[in-house]
Amino acid sequence: MLEISRRSALQIAAFAVAASSIRPAQAEDSAILPSWADGEAKAGIMDFVAATTTEGSSDFVEPAARIAVFDNDGTLWGEQPMYVQLAFALDRVKQLAPQHPEWQTTEPFKSVLAGDMAGVAASGERGLLELVAATHAGVSAEEFEKIVSDWIASARHPASGKPYTAHIFQPMVELIDYLKTNQFEVFIVSGGGVEFMRPWTERVYGIPPENVVGSSIKTKYELRDGVPAIMRLPEVDFIDDGPGKPAGINKFIGRRPIAAFGNSDGDFEMLEWTTAGPGRRFGLLVHHDDAERENAYDRQSHFGRLARGLDEASARSWTVVSIKNDWKIVYPE
Amino acid sequence: MLEISRRSALQIAAFAVAASSIRPAQAEDSAILPSWADGEAKAGIMDFVAATTTEGSSDFVEPAARIAVFDNDGTLWGEQPMYVQLAFALDRVKQLAPQHPEWQTTEPFKSVLAGDMAGVAASGERGLLELVAATHAGVSAEEFEKIVSDWIASARHPASGKPYTAHIFQPMVELIDYLKTNQFEVFIVSGGGVEFMRPWTERVYGIPPENVVGSSIKTKYELRDGVPAIMRLPEVDFIDDGPGKPAGINKFIGRRPIAAFGNSDGDFEMLEWTTAGPGRRFGLLVHHDDAERENAYDRQSHFGRLARGLDEASARSWTVVSIKNDWKIVYPE
Repeated sequence: MLEISRRSALQIAAFAVAASSIRPAQAEDSAILPSWADGEAKAGIMDFVAATTTEGSSDFVEPAARIAVFDNDGTLWGEQPMYVQLAFALDRVKQLAPQHPEWQTTEPFKSVLAGDMAGVAASGERGLLELVAATHAGVSAEEFEKIVSDWIASARHPASGKPYTAHIFQPMVELIDYLKTNQFEVFIVSGGGVEFMRPWTERVYGIPPENVVGSSIKTKYELRDGVPAIMRLPEVDFIDDGPGKPAGINKFIGRRPIAAFGNSDGDFEMLEWTTAGPGRRFGLLVHHDDAERENAYDRQSHFGRLARGLDEASARSWTVVSIKNDWKIVYPE
Repeated sequence: MLEISRRSALQIAAFAVAASSIRPAQAEDSAILPSWADGEAKAGIMDFVAATTTEGSSDFVEPAARIAVFDNDGTLWGEQPMYVQLAFALDRVKQLAPQHPEWQTTEPFKSVLAGDMAGVAASGERGLLELVAATHAGVSAEEFEKIVSDWIASARHPASGKPYTAHIFQPMVELIDYLKTNQFEVFIVSGGGVEFMRPWTERVYGIPPENVVGSSIKTKYELRDGVPAIMRLPEVDFIDDGPGKPAGINKFIGRRPIAAFGNSDGDFEMLEWTTAGPGRRFGLLVHHDDAERENAYDRQSHFGRLARGLDEASARSWTVVSIKNDWKIVYPE
């Protein structure tokens, strides 16, 4: 009798667990991706997820192989008027300037301190590397994590006066959650610095540090006064952009994704490599076409230029998301 | 009535799930780590896991921060009479030799083909890099994965005549499972090549490719006849050994582990960095002292030399595992 009731309880338990786990896929569409307008983009995402997660489907993919990769700047949060990490670097130059009187007369620091962005741009790649060295190196990994965490908590977007983390895209956060609910493993694959993102991606997007791939500078393990530290060196290690993205995915994740999400030509090769694999694949580009609620830019932009992607998306069966038409809301409320 | 019975079912379900999830920690010790002999090593592991996973314990660690890292060669599988990856490289030279008649007269290939290991060793670091370039590069990542998978399925250990994957250490596989059951995230952090390990670690250890950190050569994304490929270049990218291990953990995982498992002085800095962090930590070294069932070696070994670790383990409160005394069995049966 005891045995029978224990089995019954386990059967009920199994049923309850199964029922709760299939509920999302069976509910009406409005409960899934609620910030997405009904349309081709949303329908395409849901169709891909249904096809790859339904056992018996010819497109079924084992959970372990459900790897999805997201660009960050312009895909998960805003990248105008400049990459957030560049705003961080400029703020940090201003903060460190009192200890560097020579910066008043040497580029690119002189232009940064004068607020002359054209002057900063004129210093070219060499100038950018000097900025990175001055603002991202010379401290330990744990010190840098604290510097980033403090900055992200206090810095404000110039247009809205809100924290940069208020400028994440709510529909994309819902998309990450929807994929995770369907047993996808979700990674960020960004041209941005990996150690600039890891301190806050778990809190803001639900993506843990070990699932963040990005550009990096070299590091060195050493003892400082007998205490182990990972020191950040003023030397580029890896640029995770353009053709670097598939190489970075191969290096850090070691599997080809089945879905890739980006917004610029820096994501082209990542989408190309992802969608060229065998079986069902999904590529998506966010098109910034909403000047009223966010920004409207593509071919001419300094940050997040999108030209080849727009030209080739249709022939490659990539989904182009119109922020204006496909997103009911842009930011979390 | 319906509502009440649905709530009851959910309560039963919740209870059933909770009961099944706590069962491992409450069972008698013999059901946990069954291949480990009762003793200080096993007790130390279980005490660490209980302390860090019991809510309310002063040593409690949130599941997300329960990162555990394992060396591979000599820690998870055998590394005598030579690293398995070196055996792979030597086999591959022999396989490719017909296409390279010049190897008959040039080092280190001449010595490899003659079976003269002293000659191979005499070619030094330059010779080793030439071996890596000839045997690990010049193909795509997906082609290399197939080459490794085919080799690991067919190659045989010279002593036993069994596949190399039969020479994994059963007690360590149980330890990986035990940590995973207790919501640790487990990574391999090896001096070996990351793309030599990823094709088989999930099947053999239950560790997926994205949780494998290792040494790497550079790669380049390109189109071959219009088909995207990650090409492997004959150039070292990263050496994940010694002080490279904490740097590699920081780069690939982005969090400091709370537990580290190794067997040689190449793991010293990984254990040092792991156990120097705040809160409860655990470091363990496998000591190969069982000539009868596996091998007995430490200070004088070419592969997996262990000297400083033995000298300092006690002062650093690292656990030293005696294969002879602490493991009831060595290999899976």
